[in-house]
Amino acid sequence: MTSILLANGPNLNMLGKREHDHYGSLTWDQINQMCLNLANELDLKIETKQSNSEGKLVDIIQQAPNKHQGIVLNAGAFTHTSIALVDAIHAVNLPVIEVHMSNIYAREDFRKHSYISPVAIGGIFGFGPESYLLAIRALNTYLKT
Amino acid sequence: MTSILLANGPNLNMLGKREHDHYGSLTWDQINQMCLNLANELDLKIETKQSNSEGKLVDIIQQAPNKHQGIVLNAGAFTHTSIALVDAIHAVNLPVIEVHMSNIYAREDFRKHSYISPVAIGGIFGFGPESYLLAIRALNTYLKT
Amino acid sequence: MTSILLANGPNLNMLGKREHDHYGSLTWDQINQMCLNLANELDLKIETKQSNSEGKLVDIIQQAPNKHQGIVLNAGAFTHTSIALVDAIHAVNLPVIEVHMSNIYAREDFRKHSYISPVAIGGIFGFGPESYLLAIRALNTYLKT
Amino acid sequence: MTSILLANGPNLNMLGKREHDHYGSLTWDQINQMCLNLANELDLKIETKQSNSEGKLVDIIQQAPNKHQGIVLNAGAFTHTSIALVDAIHAVNLPVIEVHMSNIYAREDFRKHSYISPVAIGGIFGFGPESYLLAIRALNTYLKT
Amino acid sequence: MTSILLANGPNLNMLGKREHDHYGSLTWDQINQMCLNLANELDLKIETKQSNSEGKLVDIIQQAPNKHQGIVLNAGAFTHTSIALVDAIHAVNLPVIEVHMSNIYAREDFRKHSYISPVAIGGIFGFGPESYLLAIRALNTYLKT
Amino acid sequence: MTSILLANGPNLNMLGKREHDHYGSLTWDQINQMCLNLANELDLKIETKQSNSEGKLVDIIQQAPNKHQGIVLNAGAFTHTSIALVDAIHAVNLPVIEVHMSNIYAREDFRKHSYISPVAIGGIFGFGPESYLLAIRALNTYLKT
Amino acid sequence: MTSILLANGPNLNMLGKREHDHYGSLTWDQINQMCLNLANELDLKIETKQSNSEGKLVDIIQQAPNKHQGIVLNAGAFTHTSIALVDAIHAVNLPVIEVHMSNIYAREDFRKHSYISPVAIGGIFGFGPESYLLAIRALNTYLKT
Amino acid sequence: MTSILLANGPNLNMLGKREHDHYGSLTWDQINQMCLNLANELDLKIETKQSNSEGKLVDIIQQAPNKHQGIVLNAGAFTHTSIALVDAIHAVNLPVIEVHMSNIYAREDFRKHSYISPVAIGGIFGFGPESYLLAIRALNTYLKT
Amino acid sequence: MTSILLANGPNLNMLGKREHDHYGSLTWDQINQMCLNLANELDLKIETKQSNSEGKLVDIIQQAPNKHQGIVLNAGAFTHTSIALVDAIHAVNLPVIEVHMSNIYAREDFRKHSYISPVAIGGIFGFGPESYLLAIRALNTYLKT
Amino acid sequence: MTSILLANGPNLNMLGKREHDHYGSLTWDQINQMCLNLANELDLKIETKQSNSEGKLVDIIQQAPNKHQGIVLNAGAFTHTSIALVDAIHAVNLPVIEVHMSNIYAREDFRKHSYISPVAIGGIFGFGPESYLLAIRALNTYLKT
Amino acid sequence: MTSILLANGPNLNMLGKREHDHYGSLTWDQINQMCLNLANELDLKIETKQSNSEGKLVDIIQQAPNKHQGIVLNAGAFTHTSIALVDAIHAVNLPVIEVHMSNIYAREDFRKHSYISPVAIGGIFGFGPESYLLAIRALNTYLKT
Amino acid sequence: MTSILLANGPNLNMLGKREHDHYGSLTWDQINQMCLNLANELDLKIETKQSNSEGKLVDIIQQAPNKHQGIVLNAGAFTHTSIALVDAIHAVNLPVIEVHMSNIYAREDFRKHSYISPVAIGGIFGFGPESYLLAIRALNTYLKT
Repeated sequence: MTSILLANGPNLNMLGKREHDHYGSLTWDQINQMCLNLANELDLKIETKQSNSEGKLVDIIQQAPNKHQGIVLNAGAFTHTSIALVDAIHAVNLPVIEVHMSNIYAREDFRKHSYISPVAIGGIFGFGPESYLLAIRALNTYLKT
Repeated sequence: MTSILLANGPNLNMLGKREHDHYGSLTWDQINQMCLNLANELDLKIETKQSNSEGKLVDIIQQAPNKHQGIVLNAGAFTHTSIALVDAIHAVNLPVIEVHMSNIYAREDFRKHSYISPVAIGGIFGFGPESYLLAIRALNTYLKT
Repeated sequence: MTSILLANGPNLNMLGKREHDHYGSLTWDQINQMCLNLANELDLKIETKQSNSEGKLVDIIQQAPNKHQGIVLNAGAFTHTSIALVDAIHAVNLPVIEVHMSNIYAREDFRKHSYISPVAIGGIFGFGPESYLLAIRALNTYLKT
Repeated sequence: MTSILLANGPNLNMLGKREHDHYGSLTWDQINQMCLNLANELDLKIETKQSNSEGKLVDIIQQAPNKHQGIVLNAGAFTHTSIALVDAIHAVNLPVIEVHMSNIYAREDFRKHSYISPVAIGGIFGFGPESYLLAIRALNTYLKT
Repeated sequence: MTSILLANGPNLNMLGKREHDHYGSLTWDQINQMCLNLANELDLKIETKQSNSEGKLVDIIQQAPNKHQGIVLNAGAFTHTSIALVDAIHAVNLPVIEVHMSNIYAREDFRKHSYISPVAIGGIFGFGPESYLLAIRALNTYLKT
Repeated sequence: MTSILLANGPNLNMLGKREHDHYGSLTWDQINQMCLNLANELDLKIETKQSNSEGKLVDIIQQAPNKHQGIVLNAGAFTHTSIALVDAIHAVNLPVIEVHMSNIYAREDFRKHSYISPVAIGGIFGFGPESYLLAIRALNTYLKT
Repeated sequence: MTSILLANGPNLNMLGKREHDHYGSLTWDQINQMCLNLANELDLKIETKQSNSEGKLVDIIQQAPNKHQGIVLNAGAFTHTSIALVDAIHAVNLPVIEVHMSNIYAREDFRKHSYISPVAIGGIFGFGPESYLLAIRALNTYLKT
Repeated sequence: MTSILLANGPNLNMLGKREHDHYGSLTWDQINQMCLNLANELDLKIETKQSNSEGKLVDIIQQAPNKHQGIVLNAGAFTHTSIALVDAIHAVNLPVIEVHMSNIYAREDFRKHSYISPVAIGGIFGFGPESYLLAIRALNTYLKT
Repeated sequence: MTSILLANGPNLNMLGKREHDHYGSLTWDQINQMCLNLANELDLKIETKQSNSEGKLVDIIQQAPNKHQGIVLNAGAFTHTSIALVDAIHAVNLPVIEVHMSNIYAREDFRKHSYISPVAIGGIFGFGPESYLLAIRALNTYLKT
Repeated sequence: MTSILLANGPNLNMLGKREHDHYGSLTWDQINQMCLNLANELDLKIETKQSNSEGKLVDIIQQAPNKHQGIVLNAGAFTHTSIALVDAIHAVNLPVIEVHMSNIYAREDFRKHSYISPVAIGGIFGFGPESYLLAIRALNTYLKT
Repeated sequence: MTSILLANGPNLNMLGKREHDHYGSLTWDQINQMCLNLANELDLKIETKQSNSEGKLVDIIQQAPNKHQGIVLNAGAFTHTSIALVDAIHAVNLPVIEVHMSNIYAREDFRKHSYISPVAIGGIFGFGPESYLLAIRALNTYLKT
Repeated sequence: MTSILLANGPNLNMLGKREHDHYGSLTWDQINQMCLNLANELDLKIETKQSNSEGKLVDIIQQAPNKHQGIVLNAGAFTHTSIALVDAIHAVNLPVIEVHMSNIYAREDFRKHSYISPVAIGGIFGFGPESYLLAIRALNTYLKT
């Protein structure tokens, strides 16, 4: 059975407890449940990991090939600052899909550049929790073709 | 019944006849059929328009509210150069989803800036024809909530 | 009798139907009528043309010398992107006055550069429909001296 | 009776005595008379002040609300360098119209940025003395609506 | 018999009627005749197309492979602004030679960057009508080797 | 009783053991004692945390609302590189005061930009250990008004 | 008895009469009284000077050493434009503390660069009138050590 | 008898009382005497003016043609910030020679750009008081040829 | 006996398991053995530490002086993003030699700037595992002179 | 009889011995022979000079007017770095045609700027040896009109 | 027997006679002797060449393949300005190792960019004369694998 | 007897034969004679050297200390491109005075940056041949104090 890692970066553990304008009012547990439901429907396994630490996220990505065939990655603020994540993605040989709940191109200038985009298969931004669901579908399609 | 405009910019009429590295080997007619099938499944109406002309695309967007509730827009090269499309999107009051088949962030530098992104609900890039299907799903969800 | 071309660029056909914050609530037909009234008072002939297409605007400017002694030009979004309009203005030998209804310097950064300004006699921005009336007066004065 | 302040920045006392290419051959007294005539026609009061000193211009703007309902401002070279004038405009609550006799966008690069534009209602540039007359008309219309 | 498309962008229909400093005094019909004469001599067929519209030029390039083996392209002002032309050149598989009558590197700064150059075989600039003749020769040689 | 978190970023555990030019010769324990004395005088509770890890600092800020009403933050080198801290500050709803012992604007260029400043209430830099004392006073005043 | 100069730049005479969002509702006289009270408490003498003129502020700083041991300087808009103040600070040999009532790093881009910061001992921004009180404390501590 | 204006900008009244590294230990009175001696030798009249105010320096330059045939200008910090002085130099029709005692190109980056240089005949920097003497010689030669 | 710390940054634990183009096919254990052999030959002690976490690397460097006389540092991706490592190097008083296995100047632009270089004694890049051996020799020589 | 100087810059002596991707496999002697044949056909004299030294190329251009009526110049790498060649071209009064065998706009960024272009009559790039032949034709035409 | 060219650029003939801070006190003859000793030990032949002329250095590199299997290159100031050397390195097919005695990244900004780095195998900087010895070792290892 | 080297860079051998707008109509021999006359008057020895080659100029500067106590340097175009000359000036320990006949700040942008200025004592530009005479006087004064 195909397995997907859903990796979340810093502050995404605060979802639903914070800025509702950018991220809506659902908590991560609720979004996670939506992802699990869709995974079920698509016959996928999903494991979720979150860390506020860049180094821990690098660890998570390095270890992904042991259990997973692809990664849905919302690197949060590290999207804009972490070359170490780029190198980790290079180092494992798994397809990565970049996800953002908010439209990062309609916010501060420093959110308009992503180190992740050029090393991802593709990306999805701006649809709130739906961004995760679309990414799971995209990765599912990608892995089947 | 909800109706969606699927608007394609310059050179997308050449799909399947051109650079397979970036865009795959399906023709637009084949991709269009995939979109119609999904629309059918989701109980949506879809109309497709394409033009190589910026002015004609502005016309197309200006007239969209007469028949449609939302727009899936692949502005092609105009993504990077057209402020007139930005203004047209402002002028009609419809949600727009930005779509790219290729990963525009893994190509030439001049493809890394999108005028469309900040005025779209969200965007999807890099998944080939699947990008359109995901966008239709995203718009469908958006319009229902 | 002196004749003036009043050329409008993309999306200006949407005036009064769109963003009232930037452009007020008058439609182009109402503004046009105000222009005709002033023209009448100043003993001028005015012809109005609008297009969403850069190429068509180039055509319009190229043909202006056949009927007109000067141009009031609101190039809309093309103000910021069109070198072809610059060349068309160079190619015809008519005075051009740049007009904007909104204060383009108080909006997005990409609206702060105008290709038209350096090849125009002068410009007027920020006064809503009044911008057109002032431009007609300015061109009238210019043509009479 | 509505009263307008007409504030001129550095070197505008030299009008008519200096570079005729950019500014024409009329002296400020002659232009001032044209302004007074128009004010008369429009039933306005106009007071003119000029200073070569940025600090004095800040004083002039700060004191304007005591006597005036709006300001026509040709900040001259301070247009491009003075944030203190921006703050003074913020501090008084009067509409300001930016005026330039020359087309500042067709001159040196350092004249292409205006600190005044974003805090003005609108602006007029390039029409020589006529720029002032158009600005008075624009302010008159603005104050009456 | 080898056939070449000679495609001209915006304002080149004004040749001979406009700025003689940059473009000389020959009309396009006269230059065209010079091209036909040279084609004759080189045993080539030449077809000429011009448009002021970016979208139309994209159409022209997309259709070129039906009749032609190569393109001589003077994209005029679109040289500096059109990514859609770049994509059209990518989409057809024909050699393109970039031509400019004036020395674009000795004019305004915004004329110093060409989107066309990197996707052309080579380029020729600054020789007036002779630029076209040299380009025809270059394409002829290229197609024969 | 009002409680303040005093959060220190990387290398601040080395105070007094390192570069005396920039940071003086007091150790953190000595400075901490000065802070506690002032807190006592102002009737405040203070808790101090330090980490060399960005992720741990994000954790610390996320958990601050459980015990504290405000944060005095010396993010050290992360001041200039961490968007994750910006997001953490957004995520908790506590006032933050930025502190630097050295004058960061009189050092290397890369220390002249702070990601923290725009999301802080205000900031204090350059006064050595006194910077902390002033920040505690400032936060105390802020929380009481 | 130690004496401090409190020097205010352009538009700070308008405090309390202007933009309450950035500067609060206290007038300068009220803030001045707060400063005098604190000075009294700290056994300091304070003299306050304000000018809208850069040249006058240069004079004020040049003459400061005759009566004062240090300067609290809110240069207002000149913070961002005046190199003459930098030179004046170099010329007198007194410690200067930079003060801003608003958080200049959370406003327009042109307020994010300070010429004063690198030549000041340190700085305080964002605390409204409290900024002055903290600066007086900081200077007091500095002068005593 | 030929007369020269020697105009000094902000802080040059502090010469000899300030930073000896950049400006040496002579006071302006001593340097002035050296200038007068040289003037005597060259059969010139020299008048010296200094101001810390940009507006006053503009006045000084505007009035120079009444008495002088040329200007030796050390604009001090205004060298790098004042467009008003540029306009004043344009407005009077006198040759201006730019002078700096220090080598402005070996100091802070913001001292490396001069607004004055392009509108001066020529310039002299880095020789301390000798810079003035060389400038007087240069102007003397210029005025005699 | 002299002891050297060999500190490796993020993803260097993946050596030999990843991108062979940039890093060759040796694992870190194999390279480490080569380093130990050389150390033996040079009569040095070497301790190796690796972390994917910036904070942990800061800890490692802070503690180095307890056991080591110098550091060979391959900061990996943190080379380009970490000011905290710069501060840690400043804080300990040990010579640091920068090492890269790949030629970072022949890769992506974002790898061309190193925060480490200016605070290192010197650096070595591009020689694969040999880079480490050369760095050990260089540090050995440095420590002996 | 008209005489042309064909001047080649650094490394062009290596033609045919080096990078065949950019420059083809012909040696300079073979290309030279092609040039001589064309010269013969066009009734021109051609002299060829090459140097790896910028100074020697300046000499060559300075002496050209003694024997030649025009210059075909392939400045090689000096195209992008030499202002001395620009000055030499200014100093002699001969028409210069810029030639490049490769398409310099499709290579590294530092090859996209030419100091030579603005001071040449025109230029030709990208056609391999044919570039020289076209340049000879262009110069021949230029000299005859 | 393997032979290495050791090529030195401008001013390196002055070693030991100049700035001891950056380059130490050894003369080139002394360093050369150290290189010869190491070459002896490694069973290599070394030839040393130095020139102050860019053109001569291009010659030296072009001729290297006749006698040598690799190059150790200290291009001195040409490191930062010479594209001709880049082309020469491309033209010969020998491995090049970049050497600098000083830490070029800890000096003026214009020394921080190297044209040589991207076309070298690798580089070594900052170790004084030892830099050459390490480079010889690196090249030796490279040539043997 | 004090001896001065007067070193001229590329194209200065063409003085009087070239662009009279920038450089006047005197030949170098005539200017040289003026310099010799002044030297005589000041009791100085002067030797003049010119080269079009950067490497030769480096040689000339390196050898200057054998005969001279100071250098007057007009590096011509190398002013803007040569770091090797900067290093040569560092390497010899002689005072250098920068000279330009034209006002380099009133010409093309690429002439506005001088590598020489920061390493010179001072500089003189814009006075034609007089620039040399002033430089000789300046160096004479410098050497005597």
